[in-house]
Amino acid sequence: MGHTVAQKLIAAHLVDGDMTPGAEIGLRVDQTLTQDATGTLVMQELEALGLDQARTDVSVQYVDHNLLQADEKNAEDHVYLQSACRRFGIWFSKAGNGVSHPTHMQRFGVPGATLAGSDSHTCAAGSLGMLAIGVGGLEAAMAIAGRPLYLRMPQIWGVHLTGELPPWCSAKDVILEMLRRHTVQGGVNRIIEYHGPGVATLSAMDRHVIANMGAELGATTTVFPSDEAVRTFLRAEQRENDFVPLAADPDASYDVTDEIDLSAIEPLIAKPSAPDKVVPVREVAGTEVSQVVVGSSANPGLRDFAITAHMVRGHQTDSSVSFDVNPSSRQILSDMTRMGATTSLIHSGARIHQTGCLGCIGMGQAPAVGQNSLRTFPRNFPGRSGTPEDSVWLCSPETAAAAALTGVITDPRDVAQQLGLTYPDLALPEVSSVNTAMLSAPPPPEEARTEELVKGPNISALPDFPPLPDQIQAPVLLRVGDDVSTDEISPAGAAALPFRSNVPKLAEFTFTRIDPSYPRRAHEVADTTGHIVIGGRNYGQGSSREHAAITPRYLGLRAVVAKSFARIHWQNLANFGILALEFQEPSDYDRIAAGDILALDNLVADLPRTSELTLRNTTRDEYYTVRHQLSERQVNAVLAGGQIPFLAQHLDS
Amino acid sequence: MGHTVAQKLIAAHLVDGDMTPGAEIGLRVDQTLTQDATGTLVMQELEALGLDQARTDVSVQYVDHNLLQADEKNAEDHVYLQSACRRFGIWFSKAGNGVSHPTHMQRFGVPGATLAGSDSHTCAAGSLGMLAIGVGGLEAAMAIAGRPLYLRMPQIWGVHLTGELPPWCSAKDVILEMLRRHTVQGGVNRIIEYHGPGVATLSAMDRHVIANMGAELGATTTVFPSDEAVRTFLRAEQRENDFVPLAADPDASYDVTDEIDLSAIEPLIAKPSAPDKVVPVREVAGTEVSQVVVGSSANPGLRDFAITAHMVRGHQTDSSVSFDVNPSSRQILSDMTRMGATTSLIHSGARIHQTGCLGCIGMGQAPAVGQNSLRTFPRNFPGRSGTPEDSVWLCSPETAAAAALTGVITDPRDVAQQLGLTYPDLALPEVSSVNTAMLSAPPPPEEARTEELVKGPNISALPDFPPLPDQIQAPVLLRVGDDVSTDEISPAGAAALPFRSNVPKLAEFTFTRIDPSYPRRAHEVADTTGHIVIGGRNYGQGSSREHAAITPRYLGLRAVVAKSFARIHWQNLANFGILALEFQEPSDYDRIAAGDILALDNLVADLPRTSELTLRNTTRDEYYTVRHQLSERQVNAVLAGGQIPFLAQHLDS
Repeated sequence: MGHTVAQKLIAAHLVDGDMTPGAEIGLRVDQTLTQDATGTLVMQELEALGLDQARTDVSVQYVDHNLLQADEKNAEDHVYLQSACRRFGIWFSKAGNGVSHPTHMQRFGVPGATLAGSDSHTCAAGSLGMLAIGVGGLEAAMAIAGRPLYLRMPQIWGVHLTGELPPWCSAKDVILEMLRRHTVQGGVNRIIEYHGPGVATLSAMDRHVIANMGAELGATTTVFPSDEAVRTFLRAEQRENDFVPLAADPDASYDVTDEIDLSAIEPLIAKPSAPDKVVPVREVAGTEVSQVVVGSSANPGLRDFAITAHMVRGHQTDSSVSFDVNPSSRQILSDMTRMGATTSLIHSGARIHQTGCLGCIGMGQAPAVGQNSLRTFPRNFPGRSGTPEDSVWLCSPETAAAAALTGVITDPRDVAQQLGLTYPDLALPEVSSVNTAMLSAPPPPEEARTEELVKGPNISALPDFPPLPDQIQAPVLLRVGDDVSTDEISPAGAAALPFRSNVPKLAEFTFTRIDPSYPRRAHEVADTTGHIVIGGRNYGQGSSREHAAITPRYLGLRAVVAKSFARIHWQNLANFGILALEFQEPSDYDRIAAGDILALDNLVADLPRTSELTLRNTTRDEYYTVRHQLSERQVNAVLAGGQIPFLAQHLDS
Repeated sequence: MGHTVAQKLIAAHLVDGDMTPGAEIGLRVDQTLTQDATGTLVMQELEALGLDQARTDVSVQYVDHNLLQADEKNAEDHVYLQSACRRFGIWFSKAGNGVSHPTHMQRFGVPGATLAGSDSHTCAAGSLGMLAIGVGGLEAAMAIAGRPLYLRMPQIWGVHLTGELPPWCSAKDVILEMLRRHTVQGGVNRIIEYHGPGVATLSAMDRHVIANMGAELGATTTVFPSDEAVRTFLRAEQRENDFVPLAADPDASYDVTDEIDLSAIEPLIAKPSAPDKVVPVREVAGTEVSQVVVGSSANPGLRDFAITAHMVRGHQTDSSVSFDVNPSSRQILSDMTRMGATTSLIHSGARIHQTGCLGCIGMGQAPAVGQNSLRTFPRNFPGRSGTPEDSVWLCSPETAAAAALTGVITDPRDVAQQLGLTYPDLALPEVSSVNTAMLSAPPPPEEARTEELVKGPNISALPDFPPLPDQIQAPVLLRVGDDVSTDEISPAGAAALPFRSNVPKLAEFTFTRIDPSYPRRAHEVADTTGHIVIGGRNYGQGSSREHAAITPRYLGLRAVVAKSFARIHWQNLANFGILALEFQEPSDYDRIAAGDILALDNLVADLPRTSELTLRNTTRDEYYTVRHQLSERQVNAVLAGGQIPFLAQHLDS
């Protein structure tokens, strides 16, 4: 039987296991991507692992998150990262060069290759027929060190596209339709593979929009075939030689299937505060808006800024709206400027921000409390904007531009009609303004070995990770609901992000969006019993940040018992020696209260022997069956205290 | 005898007193300017004063300082300010429209008019032949309410300009030469008036550069004549009808004189961390640089960005330099883009930030500790960049661009020679991209009266200000040296600025750059004795922020005894009921130690009667003569607890 694109990519990189859904597989990693908010820890991990030189084809460190530089800490991280890239043989993309995902696609994306990235939206590169997977920082570090990437073989979910998008609808509406149908848990343990005649109607950058927000569906990744649209894209990037065609075999079959008729798509919007609270724009039209933001890796392409500029050209945005534009890369800003889009945006009242992630990661442009903010971003988890009680909506650039003009949520088709706009042929340049001068190639290895790491006062060393005790008996410090995101476990935003390279400081922010007393209470028992967290379904969704495992571990977290886990966070917990356990009987969740003392016995003997453990509630004298999904490889690491102490014991292997 | 330009401007607006240097005069105020970091308090003061409608010709509120929006507080300030402008009949310049000083000059500057602004660089408008004076927020509020501006009649300091600037030198080098000669105290109690044949060689925007940084000389303001260069400027702004010629009489004479031959100027740079530590660039050439920032009200003109773009066009900035550009207004960004400068800057590696003050006020672009940052800004007081141990240098755009290209401090003439650059005819547009849509005119008064003030949770009310006690007996909590700036008393920066509309929160930052324990120690005695601060020369230099008076007052400051005071801060202390006293014998400063208990007796009877008071050191049993310079008007206000309680008692007057 034939293979899908995803199966072909996996088969070509398989170094361990077999392709049975659910089985652990090991994949050779061709490329890695790290960004500054996760990358400083990756570099500290490379130090801890004693790496000499990167062993991938290409590894790139981007600086795109922490750009506000409200104090010295961001700039110190940048200097540290630049020095570490020179030391370890990694490409360095300077602050101002652009957001990692579109920039990586433009400069390094190669159909057929694998990419592991310490950012949950790494999957965006599936737009080019890559197998691109968001992972925790430590796995990115291990990939840089030449180790395979391990994961459970996902199901392949074929989504058959037909038809063509109508005017004023765009790729963002397609992925919002997927979220409307399938929720933030719909893609868990799946690779989404788009196929069918509708694919050819989407440009490579349109596919980036759809692949990027596969992360919001919880998918392992998203893949598109590599076809003429990919060739056109690579040609514009002056890399046509990197083109390789890649398509599913005619007789390929999918584990799960779905179908979307693109011509039936209408403008959609996700209401506050989850990416899957999707409704037609018309249903919420007339809602007042005080901010509109265009940008981020979810809508990074030149066409996204060009259509926005086209709609506001010659008009003024509403006087009560702050209209913020985050160009996604310096190349795209150059192209926007060359084609006149920048001028149209400025004249209409836009605040043009430096290129980078910025507002998407809560670094700036925080809205006022209770005021509606429309964003072309991928996520609207509560507080992610930087404002505790925010009200953030997710939409396409077309819907964003319409609201900027009118001051209320508006269907872009209505604005187009009122203004007499015809849907434009956006006439994107055949050749982009390629300029690689802000991307520094690593020096030759002999020169790299003499490079010094430059560490400012805010760059801490990694904490020690002692082995797992044979018995855990610890209180439940927190009991949370479904879909808790890593933003809620370890917040981003301008206050916390500068401490991403300083675990003890960053730990003081852990879980504070849910319970400000958590860090204090955790400290109180950190040196004695440690503590346990009880979670609902899809625990740890969202961003890939491993800080959401490291900082609670630093505060004494021994185990999380949940109904289910999001993939990357589950991996991060295992990597840092925290037991991730699932209730066999989900209703047992309701039997446990905050403050209960729970116990797990004989861990050293039982963990390698069985996936079923007995969780004893000493407060209520009850017993629950819980399961771990650790492979033998992972059991050994967890018992050692996590991958770092484990690998430090096996450095020669 | 003939009059100088300054004397003509004063005479035409004099409503109280006479023009004898040192005497108190009252001036009619035609225009006011406020910015968001000081303006939220101004609006609270207008509320406290019960103002109905602004009584000036033009009052404008700019939003240019607090633009990072790291959390909800900045956005709430913006919403509050917009509502207050509508309520009180004030123009509102939205976030993104531009830095107040160049924008005010472009849109509202009128030769012959007076301008009071709650920003120390308000003096920049002297470039157009205006009498433009930086004042505390309360004085701006009183001016908006139609009250005269009171000050001591300054000396007029005539600076005779001859010759013409050589290539690669510009207006910034002229004002740095003034600072090199005269230090940050050179202009105290003086108006600087430039005259002579060299004036005609400078454009109106060049004059803005020089007038702006008159603030760094400590001058009351700076004035230029209104001549053909001003007419050309106003024509480009489509306001030629606002032109009025204004020149000194041929037989005018100056109280103090100086002379500069422009043709003898060379590239200059101010070393860390004071604007008067000026040396020739050649003397420090070769020093490593990790950041270069172009922008701010000190170099806001299109030509400043155009010359920078010209120098970097076709070249890459050094890989170890972060090259940051803060366009000063949306009009200038439009013009830069139209002429291709934006594209050149992007290609060279610039990070183009949103238009505003940003880095100049420590809102972003903070450098790493110990790394040199070259900036075209007006100030480099310690820590103002946002980095506690910063190393900030001040220079021209030419010198900044040279360093960005080479990575080390470099004379721009050397770079021009190496690159074979000829000094360009910058060919600025004859007509600027005028677009006033981000400037909202106030509604008609009948509509304004029904406007609601929109106050987010972070907008506090002003604290109460009780009357001055008859006797002060209080400890010296702090004894500081010369030239302490208002940045050191009440810091700006991304951590503190969001609390500018919340006095109790902001008070926790007071003096913390000098002594982090000050707020705690002040709280301990705030409700009993209060406390006293001892200062050196030029106490309170720099920014006009009245928070540097209000927050220590809130913490119980009763009196500052210093060798001398900077003008605006002295006025702010008087406005908020804090006694500002000068040592008759400066060496008495050395006789007082931190912790001494000082006493002042019979204040209610003595303050109106005599300017000489006796300060008793109860710890050492010593007596010192100290003087106040309060007018009768000010004595009454200080005894009442400050201008706000005083005016609240006399609302009908």
